[in-house]
Amino acid sequence: MRDQRRVRDVGEFGLISLLVEALPPEVRAGGDLAFGIGDDAAVWRPAPDADVVITTDSLVEDIHFRIDWTDWESLGHKILAVNISDLAAMGAAPKLAVITLCLRGDELVIDLQALYRGIGDLARRNAMTIAGGDIVRSPTALIFQVTALGETAGGAVLQRSGAGGGDIIGVTGTLGASAAGLRLLAFDATDPRRVAATADLLIQAHLRPEPRVALGKILLDQGASAAMDLSDGLLGDLPKILTASDVSAEIDARRVPVAGAVRAMFPEAWLDLAMRGGEDYELLFTAPDHAWSAIEQAMQEVGGQVSAIGTIVSPEAGRPAIGITGLDGERHPALPGAFDHFGTVAGQLDG
Amino acid sequence: MRDQRRVRDVGEFGLISLLVEALPPEVRAGGDLAFGIGDDAAVWRPAPDADVVITTDSLVEDIHFRIDWTDWESLGHKILAVNISDLAAMGAAPKLAVITLCLRGDELVIDLQALYRGIGDLARRNAMTIAGGDIVRSPTALIFQVTALGETAGGAVLQRSGAGGGDIIGVTGTLGASAAGLRLLAFDATDPRRVAATADLLIQAHLRPEPRVALGKILLDQGASAAMDLSDGLLGDLPKILTASDVSAEIDARRVPVAGAVRAMFPEAWLDLAMRGGEDYELLFTAPDHAWSAIEQAMQEVGGQVSAIGTIVSPEAGRPAIGITGLDGERHPALPGAFDHFGTVAGQLDG
Repeated sequence: MRDQRRVRDVGEFGLISLLVEALPPEVRAGGDLAFGIGDDAAVWRPAPDADVVITTDSLVEDIHFRIDWTDWESLGHKILAVNISDLAAMGAAPKLAVITLCLRGDELVIDLQALYRGIGDLARRNAMTIAGGDIVRSPTALIFQVTALGETAGGAVLQRSGAGGGDIIGVTGTLGASAAGLRLLAFDATDPRRVAATADLLIQAHLRPEPRVALGKILLDQGASAAMDLSDGLLGDLPKILTASDVSAEIDARRVPVAGAVRAMFPEAWLDLAMRGGEDYELLFTAPDHAWSAIEQAMQEVGGQVSAIGTIVSPEAGRPAIGITGLDGERHPALPGAFDHFGTVAGQLDG
Repeated sequence: MRDQRRVRDVGEFGLISLLVEALPPEVRAGGDLAFGIGDDAAVWRPAPDADVVITTDSLVEDIHFRIDWTDWESLGHKILAVNISDLAAMGAAPKLAVITLCLRGDELVIDLQALYRGIGDLARRNAMTIAGGDIVRSPTALIFQVTALGETAGGAVLQRSGAGGGDIIGVTGTLGASAAGLRLLAFDATDPRRVAATADLLIQAHLRPEPRVALGKILLDQGASAAMDLSDGLLGDLPKILTASDVSAEIDARRVPVAGAVRAMFPEAWLDLAMRGGEDYELLFTAPDHAWSAIEQAMQEVGGQVSAIGTIVSPEAGRPAIGITGLDGERHPALPGAFDHFGTVAGQLDG
């Protein structure tokens, strides 16, 4: 009987596995490609002294952004930022990007010029080149697709698979501000929270995330064991490191860094926003105990913030899981579900 | 007054210029990026002995393909083939690709597996790695977006800008078969031409173009002066070489290679299909007279075909133009218009 499963039945991660299986083995990441499907980016070594890191990410209208909730310059910033963030998570320096615009044709030229000013400003600050791309007609939605290339010195990169038992789990910056900003954007414009003094700070965190390039390089240089960027929320992304490294985690919710503005604006929901909110584009990483103080010091020297939020432990019964100590000091196991673009729950790690 | 121009008012090429202007100068292709916007691909030199060639191309449902006119495996072949073709046009060897699938969610998994078999088979034959990518939800149309990376030995690449006066204009293979196949696909299934013995050959030329990687390398090695791949038709693409090189061309229509099946199936339209049809993915190139015989011989050794169809001449009045000698032996100027995705006519070279 013909296989009747549809994409939404198997989910994004199930589909990726099935598609990789459909490729001949010699075509899958390997050989002179060091890493591939599964990490934030792939690494290719075209010459012994050159490592090229490649990543690709798309933003689709009404799925990843709403055009009435952003200005075009911020949108340009964000489509490049989410790609730079993937490079930062591997410790790579961004070098260039190619951009595909899927347009309906009725967009105002000045809006797209503003988009490119947002792209250009972030590229300039990261010494990147915009090396062309493609413009195609889209039947309905706007879609922006970026492929970014970076490089690392000496060939080392941070991967998801390096976490080991006893490692400290750390995050840069604070969590939850982007998700809080997204909630504010959904409020009626007259809502008093929307016009509060701190609202703009949270909305900007959502619209213009700043990729942590310098911090990623510090993590690589100072001996972090694994890293990724936080796009799908702490409880959505941590399982990816745990699965790749075959380890479990103990997280202390009391140590998760959350901006005061998020706590003040959402007194009921701030922890959920920080744990599950997504789109923070901070770095989640693990590091051996002996490397921690050097990481902390190097981050402070560049004005970066880092928090230890838990510990890597051996998996019970051979299956990665997350135990969480709540605000009340009680420990309870979590049921993390990585965000899946087709709505199925992936990563039922402790079920 | 606010600029009210929309994308369709300025066209694809006008938009590209305006967007490049919106970027800070230091972000535009240049520096350690040898070429950029304007050629088939960009070139980046991450180390002195490594040149990375980058290209990106998308196929959008109902604009670049119809799902009822193709099988999924052929579609997979084609989305990778059009990108490999851009690398081939610069003389580069394809090395890896990342693929973004914009899906509705209701696609059958086995169809996407067939897509990946088509991708995988072409990748395997070209010793490429599929290094991951991205899956996003699309509100309506299927969109497949590929970024491909290649490399060249010694850092040389074929560009559009190298054509010089007196150079011979050549094309590989034959032209018009893909456009003829597209016409056949639009015919009613009961049309006698649709079921003719040669129809399948032409339809396959449209659905599964074979990128000319080996021929591109020969052109680079044997001293061709400029090259590009033919995606928008001879009269759509030749102006791009002429503009980039600031030269004019004389083409002899009697020497344009057209497959017998195209002439037989479309006795009225075959020359138009060959001159304007598009999607042949053959290579259009220029070469100095003294290099021609070596190119011809090297191509024949690998079973490739090459035809001299005209000559590069100095531009009259400083503006690139194309003169065409027709089948009747009469010379008349042409009005070439490069295919523009937003419907405006670009490249009115002799108007």
